[in-house]
Amino acid sequence: MTTAATDELADPQYRAAVVDLLGVLAYGELSAFERLSDDAAMAPTLTDRAEVAAMACAEFGHFTLLRERLVGLGADPEEAMAPFVGPLEAFHASTTPADWLEGLVKAYVGDGIAADFYTEIAQHLDASTKALVLEVFASTGHAEFVVETVRQAIVTDPRVGGRLALWGRRLVGEALSQAQRVAAERDGLTVLLVGGVDRPGVDLAEIGRMFARLTEAHSRRMAALGLAA
Amino acid sequence: MTTAATDELADPQYRAAVVDLLGVLAYGELSAFERLSDDAAMAPTLTDRAEVAAMACAEFGHFTLLRERLVGLGADPEEAMAPFVGPLEAFHASTTPADWLEGLVKAYVGDGIAADFYTEIAQHLDASTKALVLEVFASTGHAEFVVETVRQAIVTDPRVGGRLALWGRRLVGEALSQAQRVAAERDGLTVLLVGGVDRPGVDLAEIGRMFARLTEAHSRRMAALGLAA
Repeated sequence: MTTAATDELADPQYRAAVVDLLGVLAYGELSAFERLSDDAAMAPTLTDRAEVAAMACAEFGHFTLLRERLVGLGADPEEAMAPFVGPLEAFHASTTPADWLEGLVKAYVGDGIAADFYTEIAQHLDASTKALVLEVFASTGHAEFVVETVRQAIVTDPRVGGRLALWGRRLVGEALSQAQRVAAERDGLTVLLVGGVDRPGVDLAEIGRMFARLTEAHSRRMAALGLAA
Repeated sequence: MTTAATDELADPQYRAAVVDLLGVLAYGELSAFERLSDDAAMAPTLTDRAEVAAMACAEFGHFTLLRERLVGLGADPEEAMAPFVGPLEAFHASTTPADWLEGLVKAYVGDGIAADFYTEIAQHLDASTKALVLEVFASTGHAEFVVETVRQAIVTDPRVGGRLALWGRRLVGEALSQAQRVAAERDGLTVLLVGGVDRPGVDLAEIGRMFARLTEAHSRRMAALGLAA
């Protein structure tokens, strides 16, 4: 941790905002672990089950990194995660995959949007927090498995493509709706993006460009799966 | 791998028996991952959820070691595991924990018996397979968490102790019944223990002593939990 980073984290408002951010990320990873391990049970072969179990454990590994950092910042991980349990469980409850393929699309599309969004946020953070967020969202190499499996399923039965395209749109809608709820309730997270008294934030034009980039990346992921965005 | 070990694995009957053993262990670990991640959802706090998720991922880590070895032996992991899916799922279906504490006792008591049993078996295997089995069943340090949590629950409500003691006995009964089914169907595994033409096995008196050791270790684990065996 550089001295500059330490200084930034010494600001109580900024530190609280970082704890909020790490809390939502930590609970996101813990619940992703649980959802993926549920999905593993739907896999058609033992090999597929093992592949999704590996994805689940990769998420759990990220969770442990975030928890360590929270402890390092003197925060109670349980308290830091608590405000985000409701919104994230609501998201998962409204997007429970009906089958194996919906689970894969959710993992790929959902993780993709989250990774893009938090990587954008990370650009405005102190160096140590930024490095942690980038590490958590670094590619785990599981995307190829999802892309191949979904594309193959569409080749086998083209109707699957239409259903999964609708599913992808629903995932984005639900994610945005829960994200808005979190943003409205947790000022801290908003402060990270728009800045504070001593910290320059992002202007509205830049936020607009950021959403354009997120949307574009989402469309690319849907296209990679062979789905209309 | 020593030359002696390579020679032993060159014997097709022995090699097939080892593939059977690695297959049952691999599926055991994969299904343990899934059961523990289900149990995590029952945990009363986020900290407990994370603890059980860590146990699940440790089991998955063992699975990946066993799968690698199967591939190294030229076996198809999916085929090697297939014969054991039915018996292990039957075991899990007959011992679905009703709550969080039953899940913990199952993990601790069940893993304990499995570890003791396969560690005994490992003594009669070639050096490389023995080392792998011992690594898979090396303590992962999660036992303390289970022991403390269960003991604390009994302090809080002593009636829990009676219920969990019954549960522990049922787990052992179901495990033995499925183990007998597997032994009856898979000669290979029996061959590992009782030996083959060129390989000395274990005589009946030694098998009797082994079961005495397993029973004793099980009683010690139940006592550690504060339960009557």
